Amino acid sequence: MYTLPKGFSLAVANADFRGKNLPRNDLSLVLCEQNAIAAGLFTTNLFKAAPVLCSQKNLNESKEIRAVVINSGQANACTGEKGMQACLQSQALIEELFSLPKGSVLTASTGVIGAHMDMEKWEEASYELRSNLGQASLEDYAKSIMTTDAFPKIAYRKIEKNGQEVIFAGVAKGAGMICPNMATMLSVLITDAAVDKETWTEAVRRAVQQGFNQVSVDGDTSTNDSLFALSSGLSGVSLEKTELQEILTEMLQELAYLLVKDGEGASKVMHITVTGAKTDEDAEKIARTVGHSQLVKTAMFGKDPNWGRIVAAAGRAGVAFDPDELTLTLCGVEIFRNGQPVDMDIDTVFYPLLDKTDIEILIALGEGNGKAHLKASDLSHDYVSLNSDYRS
Amino acid sequence: MYTLPKGFSLAVANADFRGKNLPRNDLSLVLCEQNAIAAGLFTTNLFKAAPVLCSQKNLNESKEIRAVVINSGQANACTGEKGMQACLQSQALIEELFSLPKGSVLTASTGVIGAHMDMEKWEEASYELRSNLGQASLEDYAKSIMTTDAFPKIAYRKIEKNGQEVIFAGVAKGAGMICPNMATMLSVLITDAAVDKETWTEAVRRAVQQGFNQVSVDGDTSTNDSLFALSSGLSGVSLEKTELQEILTEMLQELAYLLVKDGEGASKVMHITVTGAKTDEDAEKIARTVGHSQLVKTAMFGKDPNWGRIVAAAGRAGVAFDPDELTLTLCGVEIFRNGQPVDMDIDTVFYPLLDKTDIEILIALGEGNGKAHLKASDLSHDYVSLNSDYRS
Repeated sequence: MYTLPKGFSLAVANADFRGKNLPRNDLSLVLCEQNAIAAGLFTTNLFKAAPVLCSQKNLNESKEIRAVVINSGQANACTGEKGMQACLQSQALIEELFSLPKGSVLTASTGVIGAHMDMEKWEEASYELRSNLGQASLEDYAKSIMTTDAFPKIAYRKIEKNGQEVIFAGVAKGAGMICPNMATMLSVLITDAAVDKETWTEAVRRAVQQGFNQVSVDGDTSTNDSLFALSSGLSGVSLEKTELQEILTEMLQELAYLLVKDGEGASKVMHITVTGAKTDEDAEKIARTVGHSQLVKTAMFGKDPNWGRIVAAAGRAGVAFDPDELTLTLCGVEIFRNGQPVDMDIDTVFYPLLDKTDIEILIALGEGNGKAHLKASDLSHDYVSLNSDYRS
Repeated sequence: MYTLPKGFSLAVANADFRGKNLPRNDLSLVLCEQNAIAAGLFTTNLFKAAPVLCSQKNLNESKEIRAVVINSGQANACTGEKGMQACLQSQALIEELFSLPKGSVLTASTGVIGAHMDMEKWEEASYELRSNLGQASLEDYAKSIMTTDAFPKIAYRKIEKNGQEVIFAGVAKGAGMICPNMATMLSVLITDAAVDKETWTEAVRRAVQQGFNQVSVDGDTSTNDSLFALSSGLSGVSLEKTELQEILTEMLQELAYLLVKDGEGASKVMHITVTGAKTDEDAEKIARTVGHSQLVKTAMFGKDPNWGRIVAAAGRAGVAFDPDELTLTLCGVEIFRNGQPVDMDIDTVFYPLLDKTDIEILIALGEGNGKAHLKASDLSHDYVSLNSDYRS
């Protein structure tokens, strides 16, 4: 049982947005008892869902952010003017029910693109949120935002400073359309650390860069990706900038790792590191090309040390480098150097290594100091099943 | 039974490169009775297999191209100096056995990356090629270059000009690592049309641009992609440039379509067309992002009109456009316009349409005259099975 940061209460409700009468919650609320210091990061997809646009507007224009409302089951993306109206209506309803100022509610939605929100269900479940307020635990909350996720994702820190407690609690959901620039994911981070808006915004941005932006499940970036980070400031404790940064980065990296581990149908997490490229951008291109290669992903799923697919993916990444200078180390064993495989019985060597969940792939070039890291999932039968089942 | 172009003979042999004692041929020869007008196009991957490097050298330096030798089962890629020596040795052997000039043999290999060629098997099977010369049909030949292909791929034209026959015969093999810039594929085109080297080379290059470069199975580009186009000139008939171009382009488009249709585990061919982009490059980026999207591919496999995945893929392609101006037409039915879905019962409308093998996806933007086309396969359980089975 996690203690929440001071000033925050949670509520969850079952709106049955999926229309399947499942005993699962799909609407949730984070409420802050006073105006929060708030930061948000959103999808780079040109098609931004209505809740993304509405939340961006409130973050830009309002100084009184008090709540985050998330529904899973319907994305409210590519729904045009009607979708925008539905989103505004849902924000107004929460403002009214909880007596909050106008523009104080952030929203996020996840689910099938293009379907219109069922506003009757929304309204009914919102009343449930009000009557349940404060009864949901962090675990309940993490579960309520899940879609095809297999398990809830939580990162948590409790820190003592001069006898006073500071708490950070983060949740995230995946599990498909996960890629650069925030993944198809929603994430909420709350704390009672005392922070100023500028420091907080910059620390969150950097933590996302080192966390969510370095993972990939399937290379797709959704229309709904959103991260909200709210501080109540109510612990009264303010942390050093570097300590704050370290905590946020570590927590988002933990959540990012969980996203990949729970990637749709994933059985492996590839930890891909590229060093020695001319630039960090070159290194990132190679890491992403390897991490997105269907052939590399299926080989990992099959526990096959088919290193040629990794080398070939690096070679087609659109980055210029001397192929004779590339060294590939798989699970700590150097397997390719000087344009040819290192002599060994690869089956005997790799059989036990590739049986593990976490697979280290290190690609070293001889061009410069550019480096990058990416965590990527494998590609399994379950991924195909989950995503080809009608309207998953 | 196809009549071969004048001046060409074929031979196939079973070298058992896979070491599985299968009753299938895996070494093949095209022999031209006089020096051929020859053109070649190769992979853009930085890791070029030894046979690619050796063939490029011969095409650049020799005016006496007489033969093409292809083995399937071993790629001879990423095999370093030893691989180069093996390739040169295999070329020398064919030159000796068939009394050909030095530098007259082109080679291609396909199979697992990194394994060294078994030169004893090579030599033995080369003698078999010599004793079998002329006995193989075009179908035998097309089969001998297959790896995981489900069927042989042949394109064929017989044309009469002033009472004289001109013949074009083309074969290709896929079926994985198929992407831009030539796919993981080998292709051989032979003709007896009279052509000059410059016209032939340019016509072949353009035909590849319109054919093989517009298909994708899995986004991976192999280390071994090679296309060889040889003319004996022995029909004595020379064609108009435009007619020659039309024939080559059509034939390579036919072969390219067959590659996608026979993509590993493929059940669908998506015909993706993007129009109205600022530039052709922008249009191509969008077409490739949609064609490579695992979520779009799995939706098509599941016959799911989940158009939101197509729109979302376009929106993350890294191309700037006004999303409200995008129109999506799926299987001839306009389904998305003005930022929202067209009102219809999509399940009833699309159920019969998505049951077909060929799926038309038309994305129209409002930015300019840029356009692009891509044929791409879906993503199925069989793809995962084929590629995760140990060392496929």
